[in-house]
Amino acid sequence: MKNPPHIAIAGATGAVGIEMLECLADLKVPYAELTLLASARSAGKKVEFQGEELTIQELTPSSFEGVDIALFSAGGSISKEFAPHAAAAGAVVIDNSSAFRMDEEVPLVVPEINPEAAFDHPRGIIANPNCTTIISLMALAPLHKAFGLKSIIASSYQAVSGSGAAGIAELDAQVQALANGGEIVREVYPHQIVSNVIPHVDVFLEDGYTKEELKMLNESRKILAQPELGVTCTCVRVPVHRSHSVSITAVFDKPVSVEAARAVYGDGTPGVSLCDDPTQALYPTPLDTTGKNDCLVGRIREDKVLPNALALWVVGDQVRKGAALNAVQIAELLLKGPSS
Amino acid sequence: MKNPPHIAIAGATGAVGIEMLECLADLKVPYAELTLLASARSAGKKVEFQGEELTIQELTPSSFEGVDIALFSAGGSISKEFAPHAAAAGAVVIDNSSAFRMDEEVPLVVPEINPEAAFDHPRGIIANPNCTTIISLMALAPLHKAFGLKSIIASSYQAVSGSGAAGIAELDAQVQALANGGEIVREVYPHQIVSNVIPHVDVFLEDGYTKEELKMLNESRKILAQPELGVTCTCVRVPVHRSHSVSITAVFDKPVSVEAARAVYGDGTPGVSLCDDPTQALYPTPLDTTGKNDCLVGRIREDKVLPNALALWVVGDQVRKGAALNAVQIAELLLKGPSS
Repeated sequence: MKNPPHIAIAGATGAVGIEMLECLADLKVPYAELTLLASARSAGKKVEFQGEELTIQELTPSSFEGVDIALFSAGGSISKEFAPHAAAAGAVVIDNSSAFRMDEEVPLVVPEINPEAAFDHPRGIIANPNCTTIISLMALAPLHKAFGLKSIIASSYQAVSGSGAAGIAELDAQVQALANGGEIVREVYPHQIVSNVIPHVDVFLEDGYTKEELKMLNESRKILAQPELGVTCTCVRVPVHRSHSVSITAVFDKPVSVEAARAVYGDGTPGVSLCDDPTQALYPTPLDTTGKNDCLVGRIREDKVLPNALALWVVGDQVRKGAALNAVQIAELLLKGPSS
Repeated sequence: MKNPPHIAIAGATGAVGIEMLECLADLKVPYAELTLLASARSAGKKVEFQGEELTIQELTPSSFEGVDIALFSAGGSISKEFAPHAAAAGAVVIDNSSAFRMDEEVPLVVPEINPEAAFDHPRGIIANPNCTTIISLMALAPLHKAFGLKSIIASSYQAVSGSGAAGIAELDAQVQALANGGEIVREVYPHQIVSNVIPHVDVFLEDGYTKEELKMLNESRKILAQPELGVTCTCVRVPVHRSHSVSITAVFDKPVSVEAARAVYGDGTPGVSLCDDPTQALYPTPLDTTGKNDCLVGRIREDKVLPNALALWVVGDQVRKGAALNAVQIAELLLKGPSS
C-alpha cells in the first residue's frame, strides 16, 4: 500500500461520511489523495476540507482505480455491490455496514481490542462493528482481559444518529412540532420518537429479538474470539441526538469487585475512561461524549443477582467511536502496520 | 368507616394529586365529602370537580377531623409530619411517598397483587409503592404466580413526571429552548434532560446504587412476600413526559417459555395487557400508555444468558398506575372490604 495513501470515502455526504472526514483531520491521517463518493444526486457538490475544495463524485464500479483505502458508509446494499469492485481494484475496504461483518473471511475490528485481526483480510475487506457493540465492548474488553467475560445482559439507550442524517432530522422536526405546535410527522421511525422511547432497532427476527440485538451477540463473540459468550440484549431508541448509552450486567469467570474493575480502567485503557464517582453524582451521559473520541464508563456496582458480576453504564458517541472514528482508526492501523 | 366516606387529598395541587381527582372520577369512587389540602400558598384556590367547586384548604394537623380516607402525595417529609395526625383522627392514610413503605406495620399494596395486605394496617397507614416497582411487578406478578420468580435484572426508562409537575415543566422549557434557541436551564435535574438520558434517579447510597434502585429490591420483596428475591436495577431518567418503561430479565424457579408466558397474560390479568407481536412490530411505548390505566407488556423473549429466564419490556403510566390510580384503587379496595 502506498503511504501516504489514496483514500476514498463512499457515502461521503451521509452523517457518518461527514464525520469520517472530521476524524481523518483529527487523527492527522496522512493521504496523497482524497476521493469523495456518493450517489449521482450528490455528484458535483463541493466540500471544503482542510483548506482544499473537493468535488463529490458519483460512486461507480470504476471509482476505485488507484485507491488504497476505501471507507464505506452508504448502507449494506451499496457495500455489497461496490466493495468487491474496490477490493478488486486493489483497495482495502473498511466497511461500516453490516454486510460483511459475519463473513469468516472478513475481520471485524475494534483497534483497541483486536488490532491484529485487521491484517488478515483475504477478501480485501475489513468490517467496522455495530455501534452499540463497539461502545459496549470498549467498556467490557479491558474487564474481559482481567476477569474473563462469560456473559452480558444489556439494555441500550440509542440515539437517533444511529439512523443517519434522516433520524436526526426526524427528531429535530418532532422537537419543533412539540415546542411550537404542528403535526408530528413519522417517516424514519414507526412511532413518534420525541417524548417517547421505542424498543425496536433494526428488523425483528423469528425468535422475537431484533437484528440489532443479535449483532451484539454475534459480533461480540467474533471480536472477543469468545464463541461461547452469552449475550441477551434489548435495544431501545431514545430521543437523544447522538451518543448511545448501554446499561450492562457483565458476568465474569473470575471473582470481581468494584475496586478491581475501577483499577483496570485506572491503568489507562486507550479509548475508554472512567467517569464514576457516586459521592459526587459523577457518571456519564450522552451529552458528555458527544463529539468526543473516548467512551466513558460509570455506575460500576456489584450485581445483586449474579455471582462474579458487575452492573455498569457505558456511553459513547455513536457517530464517532460507534462508526466513523473506529473506521478511520482501522485505516490508521493499516498505515502503521502490525505491531511487532 | 363511613360509606360513602369523607375523602381528603393532601397535596391536591401536585401532578399526582390532580391525577388522584381524575382517578376518583374514573373509578366512580363514592364519597360523601371531598377535602382538598395543600400548602398555605395554594390555600383558597378553587378547583372544579364533577360539577362542584372545591376550595383548596391549608394542610394542618387538624385537617383530618371526620376524614375516613386520606390520600397523601405531598412528599415524604409532609407524610411523616401529617400522616400520623390523620391516622390519629381516625382516617386510613394511603401514602404515595416512600416515608412508610418499609415500616413493618405498614402494608405496601398493589391491589391486583396483594389486596389482602391492605386490611392489616395497625398504624392506620397503607403505603403506595414506588412507580417503577409497581409497573415492573404488574408484568412480573402473574408470571411469578405461574413460574415462581427468583430474580430480576432491570434497566428503567423513567419519565420526568416522576419528578412531579416541576420535572414536566423542566423538560417542556428545555424542549422550547432546543427548538427556538435560548438557554437550557437546569433546576430539577443535575444535567440537561432534553436530548439526554441521566442514569441517576433519587440519591446515591454507599454501595453505588441509588435509593430508587434499592426500592425495586426492597419493595418487590415486600409486595411479593419473597424475602430472598434478587433484584439488580439501573434507573435512568429519559426525556419522556410520562409513562415509565422497564427492560427486564426475569429468572424463574420453573422452566418457562415465551408461549407459556403469553398464555398467562392471555388469561386476562387485571391491570396488565399483552402488546406483543414482533411479526407486526407490535410492542408498547410510553405514548401508548399515557393517560391509560393498564400497563402493557411486550418483547417477551427467551433470555439467551440465563436458564428459566425471560427478557421482557413493560410500560405503564407513571402518574396513573405508578402513583394516583394505585392509591385510589387501594381506597376502592377499603370501601369494598376484604373478599371472602
